[in-house]
Amino acid sequence: MNNNNFIIPHEGKIKKEDRQRQKKHKSAILWFTGLSGSGKSTLAHAVEEKLFEMGIHTYVLDGDNIRTGLNKDLGFSAEDREENIRRIGEVAKLFVDAGIITLTAFISPYKKDRELVRNLVDKDEFIEIYVKCPLEVCEQRDVKGLYEKARKGIIKNFTGIDDPYEEPENPEIVVETDKETLKESVDKIINYLKEKGHLQI
Amino acid sequence: MNNNNFIIPHEGKIKKEDRQRQKKHKSAILWFTGLSGSGKSTLAHAVEEKLFEMGIHTYVLDGDNIRTGLNKDLGFSAEDREENIRRIGEVAKLFVDAGIITLTAFISPYKKDRELVRNLVDKDEFIEIYVKCPLEVCEQRDVKGLYEKARKGIIKNFTGIDDPYEEPENPEIVVETDKETLKESVDKIINYLKEKGHLQI
Repeated sequence: MNNNNFIIPHEGKIKKEDRQRQKKHKSAILWFTGLSGSGKSTLAHAVEEKLFEMGIHTYVLDGDNIRTGLNKDLGFSAEDREENIRRIGEVAKLFVDAGIITLTAFISPYKKDRELVRNLVDKDEFIEIYVKCPLEVCEQRDVKGLYEKARKGIIKNFTGIDDPYEEPENPEIVVETDKETLKESVDKIINYLKEKGHLQI
Repeated sequence: MNNNNFIIPHEGKIKKEDRQRQKKHKSAILWFTGLSGSGKSTLAHAVEEKLFEMGIHTYVLDGDNIRTGLNKDLGFSAEDREENIRRIGEVAKLFVDAGIITLTAFISPYKKDRELVRNLVDKDEFIEIYVKCPLEVCEQRDVKGLYEKARKGIIKNFTGIDDPYEEPENPEIVVETDKETLKESVDKIINYLKEKGHLQI
């Protein structure tokens, strides 16, 4: 019985480039960062819908599928936030390797954590999208009632209240969700992807 | 300026079923388990190649992309092994949600850890593949020289030597890599996927 074929180490022959060819577009991370209530998740899902309609292979990583699963062992201390973003970055890298346009929606307040993710992938594969919105507006929206709890001290280490948000210095895209409509912000991002050649091979 | 559309929480409208329809096949985890040197990774990559040729959207999680990235903070203690498999399971679940047929190649020696992953996804989405091969044969192959180091005590907690491997009781598929050729094992798995309707919608 010849079983030599099980002995030879088998390097994966299907590469990122093969998967991109199969899917007929490039892959990248669209990294949405901004305050709680700025509209990151809303925008990420709206962009995904638009891309999906165009036949693009996409996936969104957000609190709903990460904090309840992979990162359910992590809290909101500075250390845990760092590990939270590190793991999300590593998972997003796997998705990019799988040929998927991967949208992530996390506050990701610290510059060094975002830079760490940027450095995990190729230069044009990390697209930082600053979802800009004044704290007052986010706090007024208070979709999840978190700002109220943070102001009352029920929630500690809340970004914008008692924990810093470090603004991106050179994000690839800035959207201002207190000034633009959702459609305008979506179009801005889709146009960027088109112009930079991400949506084709 | 109407920015109400940023206030309404936006549940992701693109669901697993939509992604599966887009990709024209179902998604699942093919969980390869077995001793070091049994041929898990070789087989997983060979199955992936075959699936890829058939136009299926696939991805392989193995030591090469997990232990160097997401799980680089973990060692080989029982506790770390458990966390290793937990994270891999959670990531595989995300890939299944993304519509991908996800192949994982890890020793995953403990039954309870494999069961934990099984319970993360729907019943027919976890396909346990026992890559069966006698310890003597694996040790004789010793592709990476690990058994020699384990016997000398240079590596501790090595599965099969000084750490147990708990055989799957009811795996969906068993391949015997000391008796079958690589092609036979690949065909067995592909046929299972065809018969169970995984490769179509």
